[in-house]
Amino acid sequence: MPKNIFNITPSPLTLRRLAKYLCLLNQFSQGENPEISSAKLAKIANIKPSQLRQDFHYFGGFGKPGHPYDANLLKEELLKVFGLEKPLHLLLAGATPWAATLIQCPSLPSLNVHIKGVVDFTAGTIDDEFSNCPLISTSNLAEFIERNQISVGVICANEPETYLRLLIEKGLTVFWNLSPKHLIPPLGIRIQQESLMCGLLPMVYELRKS
Amino acid sequence: MPKNIFNITPSPLTLRRLAKYLCLLNQFSQGENPEISSAKLAKIANIKPSQLRQDFHYFGGFGKPGHPYDANLLKEELLKVFGLEKPLHLLLAGATPWAATLIQCPSLPSLNVHIKGVVDFTAGTIDDEFSNCPLISTSNLAEFIERNQISVGVICANEPETYLRLLIEKGLTVFWNLSPKHLIPPLGIRIQQESLMCGLLPMVYELRKS
Repeated sequence: MPKNIFNITPSPLTLRRLAKYLCLLNQFSQGENPEISSAKLAKIANIKPSQLRQDFHYFGGFGKPGHPYDANLLKEELLKVFGLEKPLHLLLAGATPWAATLIQCPSLPSLNVHIKGVVDFTAGTIDDEFSNCPLISTSNLAEFIERNQISVGVICANEPETYLRLLIEKGLTVFWNLSPKHLIPPLGIRIQQESLMCGLLPMVYELRKS
Repeated sequence: MPKNIFNITPSPLTLRRLAKYLCLLNQFSQGENPEISSAKLAKIANIKPSQLRQDFHYFGGFGKPGHPYDANLLKEELLKVFGLEKPLHLLLAGATPWAATLIQCPSLPSLNVHIKGVVDFTAGTIDDEFSNCPLISTSNLAEFIERNQISVGVICANEPETYLRLLIEKGLTVFWNLSPKHLIPPLGIRIQQESLMCGLLPMVYELRKS
């Protein structure tokens, strides 16, 4: 896990910024010249350079002062911050457009995050696929979760409650909720709520006041 | 536009919190009892009650001290903060699973945000549909944008650059980029970057350090 030299937990906002840097590096490390300065990375991320350097300092700095970063090495260091030097396995719940969106998203495998299957109430018990990903029936689910070392259930259905109950029954405790419904987590269960609207609405505010 | 009694621009973080409250109210206003206290709303939003009250105070308070809010009225007030008492029209770019996800998302119409069509390079010039939404060919695009008063282009394709160029050519200046590629906005163009990974990665951090 991360070389956190101060041994204190970073705030949720710091973690979001680190996630942003990682996603940008993911894109820019694929170019011909993998060098990037802190000023350039900060500019693309729309964050002050001093803030970026402070965020990196937190984990020991990464690289030499005055020299640009090697985007590939920096990406590896940031992956370690998130514990993603080891692969993370997801199970999607609901064979929906959301599930197809994630399956086709090139960022996930490059962050060492892998979708192992999609569970759907309508899936048969024979081998089947959804968007080239194994489609799992509810009856095979417990065995599938154990064999594939699934860590996170991703709720992709508009009606999330029944999938949440099912996956908790089968032993999962950590969820990423992409459905438009906010879910109240039962005791001992962690649910990360995602709301696309939190990105759209602040932009609409700017647009309408201008 | 919003009754912003202090006449200062709220920070991006304040706007994100207001967006969060609005999305939650959207869900809870549909219940039998539309009353909600600031303490309950703050708890569901995972935000301190004092922070929520401060955020609301900014726009004049909404409601009487010591009384619960009427979720429907509060939702209407928050819609006004974002200028959404008037409808907002979106055009999606790319007939992809991302586009289908947005078309099927029940939150958008309830926030007075309406998807008017999907443009795709492969669309023919005859009437066609994608997920029950009009599919527009590039040759009809300028006329379609004007007739439907499109304000925002939503980039739903994994390869976003060609769609961005096309939509700028046809007169759009505000974009919501859902593709996994960060786009550098040309002069005079506003691009809101969305990255799902910024939600997933902080949760992975917690999971891996525990």
